Amino acid sequence: MAFPQQVRIVEMAPRDGLQNEPGPVIATEIKVELINRLSATGLIHIEAASFVSPKWVPQMGDASAVMAGIQRKPGVTYSALAPNLKGLEGAIAAGVEEVAVFSAASEAFTQKNINCSIAESLERFAPLIEQARSEGIRVRGYVSTVLGCPYQGDIDPVQVARVSRDLIDMGCYEISLGDTIGTGTPLKAKRMLEAVTKVVPISQLAAHFHDTYGQALANLYAVLEEGIAVIDSSTAGLGGCPYARGASGNVATEDVLYLLQGLGIDTGVDLQAVVNTGHWITQQLGRHNGSKVAQAMGDCTPRSAASQ
Amino acid sequence: MAFPQQVRIVEMAPRDGLQNEPGPVIATEIKVELINRLSATGLIHIEAASFVSPKWVPQMGDASAVMAGIQRKPGVTYSALAPNLKGLEGAIAAGVEEVAVFSAASEAFTQKNINCSIAESLERFAPLIEQARSEGIRVRGYVSTVLGCPYQGDIDPVQVARVSRDLIDMGCYEISLGDTIGTGTPLKAKRMLEAVTKVVPISQLAAHFHDTYGQALANLYAVLEEGIAVIDSSTAGLGGCPYARGASGNVATEDVLYLLQGLGIDTGVDLQAVVNTGHWITQQLGRHNGSKVAQAMGDCTPRSAASQ
Repeated sequence: MAFPQQVRIVEMAPRDGLQNEPGPVIATEIKVELINRLSATGLIHIEAASFVSPKWVPQMGDASAVMAGIQRKPGVTYSALAPNLKGLEGAIAAGVEEVAVFSAASEAFTQKNINCSIAESLERFAPLIEQARSEGIRVRGYVSTVLGCPYQGDIDPVQVARVSRDLIDMGCYEISLGDTIGTGTPLKAKRMLEAVTKVVPISQLAAHFHDTYGQALANLYAVLEEGIAVIDSSTAGLGGCPYARGASGNVATEDVLYLLQGLGIDTGVDLQAVVNTGHWITQQLGRHNGSKVAQAMGDCTPRSAASQ
Repeated sequence: MAFPQQVRIVEMAPRDGLQNEPGPVIATEIKVELINRLSATGLIHIEAASFVSPKWVPQMGDASAVMAGIQRKPGVTYSALAPNLKGLEGAIAAGVEEVAVFSAASEAFTQKNINCSIAESLERFAPLIEQARSEGIRVRGYVSTVLGCPYQGDIDPVQVARVSRDLIDMGCYEISLGDTIGTGTPLKAKRMLEAVTKVVPISQLAAHFHDTYGQALANLYAVLEEGIAVIDSSTAGLGGCPYARGASGNVATEDVLYLLQGLGIDTGVDLQAVVNTGHWITQQLGRHNGSKVAQAMGDCTPRSAASQ
């Protein structure tokens, strides 16, 4: 066992959490306030927006306005998804200091989603990553379907390792390993990580696990034992993958923080403040709060903040 | 790591799951059908009833009728809670082959609940356990609040060990360690178990963890690493502790089975059959299904069974 002393949480609610929200487009001010509330909790890495065509993701159509509206807190990274060069240009114009690109470990998933092979998808990212880096912008790589694919089922850990290494070689500083459909279990997660760490150091890896089958915290505990020190999560468990059949997607930040607190691992984040933020945003959206910790701890927003 | 090859699930839904159900008393036929459906899934240990005064627990007032109504499947243990000698008599008359008694690791919890000290509560159980054993009836001991108490907070693992050993010395064949309010986290669970296994062999211990803070599967994974081979859980996550503030209580059997399946641990239980049973009982009760696996897998009850 080699638990990390500190874990960095990469907060997904404003982007991964809201991008598939059904119904009318969420007001820019709500997104801005969510991000500001999240940065006030002590979170130091927030994925704030996606510079993708609003034709594809209407909820993210105001990415530039969101980035312009937020109060940038010193020491906090506000990253954004940039699926192509046009998205990168928008992100740069909006003053984003970190972008993320998306790949997958499953050929079937990549074909169905973007109609090309994994190798072709990586080729397309090459000029984007080069351009970003030449402008001093860090690039984070997501690899999805690392523990299972809705189309091809099991995924060979060696394939996850290969895509991860390719993205590092292309210039990504960190790889976020996504259990997109949440079908993973702890030993599977460990074996996958063991394969990836043969070619990418664990200090460059993050766990992005979904809770669709309720396994996310057990899986996180298993990879924490292996030394993973970066975890993606979403306040109130907002969002998830539209390809997964179940109701829940992203693991809730509150539940992850409670786990880490119990393990004596420092995050610098105020759990109750995140709980309060989760209650606030789910009320704004008229949505169920997907965090069990939030339900158990309740909303303790101080009066002054609640009346803002 | 020393994962067990096999795990025995002790199914809690008919007793711990239903005992606090609000609203009208659930019909005896529903309880009987639930137990019969559960035994058909391959579960070999079902806590079927509680022989407690209906004044205190109205939902369990028909314990004798339930025990008389079920189809007893060979190889399945149908146990019942027996809080006192009168309960034991009822259980014996109903042909119960195993009873369970309830203690706690917290003095404050014991005082608030039954208005005596832990030592006094154990003294009261002594004649009950002796009587049961003289009739050839096995006795299982529950120790609650092993990872935290709603009144006194943290619990000394040595205290859990002491009560567990006392119950073994009094004649219990197995001790079920209950995280009654679900506040435990994996290292806490491991440390507690390490203290208890100094005085009781792990083969005589079971984990009874609640999912109030979403930590149950992570905690179970941690104690499975220590070799725990008996797990209490409740189909559809039914029930829980009225003392816990959150909405959810018992960890869902479906979610535990999915975890165990992923770890290659055999239970002899048909996961889809439990999922179907969980959907059936939650429909009967008009209740939310608390299992994420059940939500993700959906109801696949065969037509012939569904139309029964």
